[in-house]
Parts: sequence; C-alpha cells; structure tokens
Amino acid sequence: MLKGIAPILNPDLLWLIAAMGHGDELVLVDRNYPALATAKATLTGRLITLDGVDTTEAARAILTLLPLDGFVETPILRMEVTGEPATVLPVHADLKAVADAAEGRDVAMGSIERLAFYAAARRGFGVVQTSEARPYGCFILKKGVVFD
Amino acid sequence: MLKGIAPILNPDLLWLIAAMGHGDELVLVDRNYPALATAKATLTGRLITLDGVDTTEAARAILTLLPLDGFVETPILRMEVTGEPATVLPVHADLKAVADAAEGRDVAMGSIERLAFYAAARRGFGVVQTSEARPYGCFILKKGVVFD
Repeated sequence: MLKGIAPILNPDLLWLIAAMGHGDELVLVDRNYPALATAKATLTGRLITLDGVDTTEAARAILTLLPLDGFVETPILRMEVTGEPATVLPVHADLKAVADAAEGRDVAMGSIERLAFYAAARRGFGVVQTSEARPYGCFILKKGVVFD
Repeated sequence: MLKGIAPILNPDLLWLIAAMGHGDELVLVDRNYPALATAKATLTGRLITLDGVDTTEAARAILTLLPLDGFVETPILRMEVTGEPATVLPVHADLKAVADAAEGRDVAMGSIERLAFYAAARRGFGVVQTSEARPYGCFILKKGVVFD
C-alpha cells in the first residue's frame, strides 16, 4: 500500500508497469484466458493475478499511472468476437471509456482475431489476469511516453 | 517510468516500498555504508542502489508515496555522530525537513549509535543506498498506514 496509489496496484503489478518502456505491451485478460501459458512466453515471464477485479476496474487503476502510446493509431487492441469482428461488446466499450478518461482524449481501439491475439500476447511484456466474467474481455495495451 | 511518479522511484524501489507493511523499516544509507552485507540480512534481501542521488533527494521521492508511522514517537532514526550523539548534522536536518513537508506535521527524529544502527538495519525490510557524500547520512524509516 502506498499513498495515492490505487490499492489493486500491488507491488508486482507496480514493478511490471514501471519497468515497461515505450511501445511495450501489457496483456490484460479475463478469467478464461490461458494466462500462464502466455505469460511464460512474454518478455518478463510474469503473470499478475487480480482476483475479484474485472478488466474495467483493472484498467482504471493501471491507466492512472501507465500512459498509452500516442505514436500509434490504436494503442489498445481488443479480442474480436469469433465470426463478428466488428462487434464491440460492453466489456470493450467500458475499457475504451476508461482509457478515454485516463488519457483525456479519444483513444482509438483496434481489434484482433482471437487466435491472432494469443500469438500477439506472447510478444507482450507481461500478463495481468483479472476475474472478468464477460467473454472476450481481453486487451493489449501499448505503453506510451512520460513527458514530465 | 510512470505518470506522476518521481523518476528515481525505479521499478525495484517501487516494489520494495509498496510491499512494506505497517511498522516495516526501510534502511536509507550513504555511499560509505556496507549496504550489501546489511541488505542480505534484511527481510527481502534487497539492495536498491540510487546512483547520483543523495539521501535528501531519495527521501523526498520515497516519502511522496510512503507514509511514516504515526503510531510511534520517532518514525525516523538517524545514525549518530561517533562520540557526539546529540549533534544533528545538515544531512540529518535536511531529511527531517523533507519528512515534515511530506507528512505535513512535525516528524520527530530519533537517533541510534553507529554500531547499533548496523544491527538494527539488519532487521529492516530492505536497503536503499544513495550516492550521499555527507558522513552519517544514514536513516531508518518506519512505514505507517495508508488510510484512504
């Protein structure tokens, strides 16, 4: 616990997001995602588990400290609904709203097919698994630059 | 790097101060202190090295996030000048000023004889070694409680 830091940002999660550099990608997934297998392939090999927290709450806390990349068109990717790539579920819209609020701008969210997500996630920096119950509640967040 | 977090609070130092609980003690020392030997005996075994930073700057950054213990009379202990236990050096006064500002109250600073400091430090949570050049620039900071 630290002053002014959201309580769900535990020591290991703080380490992970602080250690990321510009362009590194944080994988944020729901309770069904095979998170350990993916985490072991990532740059740090780290899996942070946030029990009792959904992806919206997790992102709200993480994005108080982690800037999103302003150098790319879509600093967030959502996992696509199988066979319905254009469908934006409430779990996706909720995360975009949290990102927009954190960044103070309209953050474009890209999308990626489920199996392609698995492959892309393995190139991430580390994985945060939540208790998110809503399907397809899986995202890749690209870190930006801290300017001040 | 994270938004709103002092740059010298690197990932490992963030982990360390976030992992501390109420009453755990952070050992903050100058460049001459035998820091690795002490660190290995601490609870985490961790030594964080802040090159180019003095104890005043280090404390200013750390105390933006780490609350000091309000349950004890002296949440900070300074290393005493050998043979002059009552002497408060500028390096000590500077740290007290930083603590007072961070806490918004008068923070009482206790003192401890040099060899007793070595023994007490080994019971700490971990060690932060700075490039502090001023002798006796060594402190033990007791963590308090985050209430909100």
